[in-house]
Amino acid sequence: MNRLDETARGVFIIAVTPFRDDGALDLAGTDGLVEFYLERGATGLTILGMMGEAPKLSGAEALVFTRRVVQRVAGRVPVVVGVSSPGFAAMRDLSTAVMEGGAAGVMVAPQPNLRTDDAIFGYFRQVAETLGDIPWVLQDFPQANGVQIAPGVIRRVVDALPTCVMLKHEDWPGLAKISALRDVPDMRRISILVGNGGLFLPEELRRGADGAMTGFAFPEMMAGVVAAHEAGDPGRAADIFDAYLPLARYEQQPGPGLAVRKFVLARRGAIPSAAQRAPRVTLTARDIAEVEFLLARQEKRLREIG
Amino acid sequence: MNRLDETARGVFIIAVTPFRDDGALDLAGTDGLVEFYLERGATGLTILGMMGEAPKLSGAEALVFTRRVVQRVAGRVPVVVGVSSPGFAAMRDLSTAVMEGGAAGVMVAPQPNLRTDDAIFGYFRQVAETLGDIPWVLQDFPQANGVQIAPGVIRRVVDALPTCVMLKHEDWPGLAKISALRDVPDMRRISILVGNGGLFLPEELRRGADGAMTGFAFPEMMAGVVAAHEAGDPGRAADIFDAYLPLARYEQQPGPGLAVRKFVLARRGAIPSAAQRAPRVTLTARDIAEVEFLLARQEKRLREIG
Amino acid sequence: MNRLDETARGVFIIAVTPFRDDGALDLAGTDGLVEFYLERGATGLTILGMMGEAPKLSGAEALVFTRRVVQRVAGRVPVVVGVSSPGFAAMRDLSTAVMEGGAAGVMVAPQPNLRTDDAIFGYFRQVAETLGDIPWVLQDFPQANGVQIAPGVIRRVVDALPTCVMLKHEDWPGLAKISALRDVPDMRRISILVGNGGLFLPEELRRGADGAMTGFAFPEMMAGVVAAHEAGDPGRAADIFDAYLPLARYEQQPGPGLAVRKFVLARRGAIPSAAQRAPRVTLTARDIAEVEFLLARQEKRLREIG
Amino acid sequence: MNRLDETARGVFIIAVTPFRDDGALDLAGTDGLVEFYLERGATGLTILGMMGEAPKLSGAEALVFTRRVVQRVAGRVPVVVGVSSPGFAAMRDLSTAVMEGGAAGVMVAPQPNLRTDDAIFGYFRQVAETLGDIPWVLQDFPQANGVQIAPGVIRRVVDALPTCVMLKHEDWPGLAKISALRDVPDMRRISILVGNGGLFLPEELRRGADGAMTGFAFPEMMAGVVAAHEAGDPGRAADIFDAYLPLARYEQQPGPGLAVRKFVLARRGAIPSAAQRAPRVTLTARDIAEVEFLLARQEKRLREIG
Repeated sequence: MNRLDETARGVFIIAVTPFRDDGALDLAGTDGLVEFYLERGATGLTILGMMGEAPKLSGAEALVFTRRVVQRVAGRVPVVVGVSSPGFAAMRDLSTAVMEGGAAGVMVAPQPNLRTDDAIFGYFRQVAETLGDIPWVLQDFPQANGVQIAPGVIRRVVDALPTCVMLKHEDWPGLAKISALRDVPDMRRISILVGNGGLFLPEELRRGADGAMTGFAFPEMMAGVVAAHEAGDPGRAADIFDAYLPLARYEQQPGPGLAVRKFVLARRGAIPSAAQRAPRVTLTARDIAEVEFLLARQEKRLREIG
Repeated sequence: MNRLDETARGVFIIAVTPFRDDGALDLAGTDGLVEFYLERGATGLTILGMMGEAPKLSGAEALVFTRRVVQRVAGRVPVVVGVSSPGFAAMRDLSTAVMEGGAAGVMVAPQPNLRTDDAIFGYFRQVAETLGDIPWVLQDFPQANGVQIAPGVIRRVVDALPTCVMLKHEDWPGLAKISALRDVPDMRRISILVGNGGLFLPEELRRGADGAMTGFAFPEMMAGVVAAHEAGDPGRAADIFDAYLPLARYEQQPGPGLAVRKFVLARRGAIPSAAQRAPRVTLTARDIAEVEFLLARQEKRLREIG
Repeated sequence: MNRLDETARGVFIIAVTPFRDDGALDLAGTDGLVEFYLERGATGLTILGMMGEAPKLSGAEALVFTRRVVQRVAGRVPVVVGVSSPGFAAMRDLSTAVMEGGAAGVMVAPQPNLRTDDAIFGYFRQVAETLGDIPWVLQDFPQANGVQIAPGVIRRVVDALPTCVMLKHEDWPGLAKISALRDVPDMRRISILVGNGGLFLPEELRRGADGAMTGFAFPEMMAGVVAAHEAGDPGRAADIFDAYLPLARYEQQPGPGLAVRKFVLARRGAIPSAAQRAPRVTLTARDIAEVEFLLARQEKRLREIG
Repeated sequence: MNRLDETARGVFIIAVTPFRDDGALDLAGTDGLVEFYLERGATGLTILGMMGEAPKLSGAEALVFTRRVVQRVAGRVPVVVGVSSPGFAAMRDLSTAVMEGGAAGVMVAPQPNLRTDDAIFGYFRQVAETLGDIPWVLQDFPQANGVQIAPGVIRRVVDALPTCVMLKHEDWPGLAKISALRDVPDMRRISILVGNGGLFLPEELRRGADGAMTGFAFPEMMAGVVAAHEAGDPGRAADIFDAYLPLARYEQQPGPGLAVRKFVLARRGAIPSAAQRAPRVTLTARDIAEVEFLLARQEKRLREIG
């Protein structure tokens, strides 16, 4: 069985959810998207995350989509499912269902109202109790939910809750946080994958991250940077990273970011349509011109670095 | 058909959700609770609200509980169901299901990330589109979600979205906001029911509120104050209000408030058990002694005012 | 020398700042206000707090006002000065100046951006370093600044920073927090005075608070409740408290609260004018009628309890 | 007289404040820093901003520093001074003093508690009243203070308050906001300078921004991008921008960002010491190695593009 554990590394792509132009879930398009991601170096898939438009799916659709992804992946890589919820009952229901559907683990971000170290730790203890033996990813994303998790709280979670096997690290700045976790000699090992569009990936890898869990429309960037890093070639990692950075920066904008990502994925043939369900930001002609300008320069730069 | 509309008035009780000591939903206890509320003057019931532990119910349980309440109420008063959700798909699913189950309308609070007047109005426009012809209550509760809704935004909602039939007003302070809405001569009438445990009920009624939608364990307080107000007797309204105020204040504490409310309801025989599902605050001996002290004084005071 | 220490108890009134109708600082009015407070049972004065319109005073005015208060008090009670500031340099400047002017200590609330236990503790350590040997009050007021301070963090502050001699407690709910501090046998004693308009004063005293630091326009309420509590008569304390509670609740409204307080103080002759500097909320005829209604009932009730 | 107006363009550098290793204000170093900035293309200076450690200066130091900067600049470019404050009295005092000292204008960010369009507009109206005829910059920086200012509110400010002559734009994303302001034909012209470390400068210029107001340690990046843009050469602008982007991204990290900036400025000889006053983040050996790696690559890349 493909069960998420602390050895996870590489590129867990935060997958978009493909819709047809009429707004229906595009299951055929899902198959193509899975292949697109795997061909470009994904070592895992994360679905129903914030950038996966999860809140726009009904409960039934979420399960249909999960099953389709798992079926297409067919055990080649683990599939992680976002299950953050205001309620533990809904979290339990969804987690049980997706694990039965073949997911490898689930991911949980804390609810926005949490303050004080004890309250945050207590929340994750309750998460672990709710999930039973399901392996889970702690998503640390203060820009999105306002919850600041101190490194010491993550260590308490890792010490006390063995089913927590991974940190999705997207605090910003997080370089010091990765060091604070990796420089503790006696902490149980967990996988650390970084988010934030990979905008600090080279530095994060050098500080001990195991890869990225993010959704930039060019998974080959993250895969290439990780490969060069693992080959001990920081210059090559930086060459690849720098070539993609102008577009990665642009795609990482809050607001239009997902529209940019889906536009690029559709342009690359990864999905048949860039359609999003409402509420959505729609690209203007100006946005599109900016993306095209960046794409043209990126292609040229990639040819230069070979 | 019992459909919520802008004539709603009186006391819409925010109902607790009864659990057994083992944590199971207590459907038999639900029947008794409904009778308790109706006997003490409720003119409506609101279920699955923040104080109804809605996030602790699975989707299936939420529907079972709604159907049981509707069945027991048997058309005597309207039943409103809280359907706030991070996603519109889930909101649509739940709303459709509860309306099919006999609810009279639904209640929606905005999501916590909303800022700017246009963003808040846009959110409620999307709510109205999602709900179709279902009548709905706009819950204005900035202390809980950080969203400040200006009176002008509420007027825009009322002007543009005819299915919005009620404001659950729990901004604090909200006296000026009620006046700002009631003193606009050409605004379409909506019902305004106040929250916050009824702690400003006499003043709110005099400024044009139609009653209360809150969950204080003594519904007869709100019913009595509304009745005295409608009878043109502000002194009597104040006598009743003042007698209950020390306990109402105590029950309104964030944190232990729900535990206090369920303790008092169980003590009054309204529910068989004060059990809450996790996460919960448990009363200490000190808390209970404080409640008993307040209850004893309240009884004495009520005898004095007759 | 009148230096604040951990034995402080009773009623530290959060003083308003008197202005003339033309907006000028009213120094003659300040003398009268000091006498008003002392005659009604104040055992300390706290000036330049949030409700003292401190941000509306220039630096020079703040010092002039402080000196006038200290001069008038003439050592009868300690004077505490609010010195919260976005910058430590300004905090040091103001603190040094007011202590030279005869203040007994200063009060500091944390800056709004603080999250995690370590960050909050680190902030107060820097406060203590900035203040040198000046005794200071930790103001715990999450409703105003969004900073949730866990009881364990307060204990760390008390253990590590000997110049912290008092907690101004206005977390809400805070009953459990007072117990969490008072039930630790080996914690260095600090004074705990409660805020929030005194709305939970009887319960807070029974849990170990030493009195109130708040600004309700009837200081005799807090003084009377503290006296009855210290005399071992909780019934009498509750009788006094309940008589004032409807107005205390009304004055505690965020927004118009300060306008209500100054209106009542002016009506009682404590200050010549209820004027506030901008930005301010102005009372409407409706607000005033509500206050008058509550005052009349309060007087009647006070006569009844004797 | 050098008075800020709506024609401002180019690069207004957010200046650091130089300290000696012992923490004293370094006035001699200030002279050198001014020359460094002007030689590298600054068309204006902005001092006492968030990245200028303003809260760590006493009131007296702030004035001394302002006068020294103004004296050294000697009318060559305008000097803008940050005067944001919790209180209008302090804002008035500081603004008057710095204008008398020769500043060209002031900059104001809203206080963190502001919500609703009317409240934000009302705040800036009060700012304008407080400042009298002093020209001012509206700083729109929601990531720092949580205040989301809708484009319509900025238009209201521009329409109603003629002394507002510039927008410091650092909403993120802000591309759509610049377009929303520049595509309104009848809006009074104001200058728009962008912040956020210049991370979107090429796109922002194409949408109508007049330049940058930010503090990246290589002012020649912003100057070069603006010059290429004004010369109608977007490819050249992008070449320059891309060469600096990896370091600009690194310097823009919240937390260690200012330490990185001062480290680079000291390494470039712009200031004698990278010292910050407390509270501060100190660079680790790892941080420094990362910066050196980026600097070496940046130099190489700049040689390649010529």
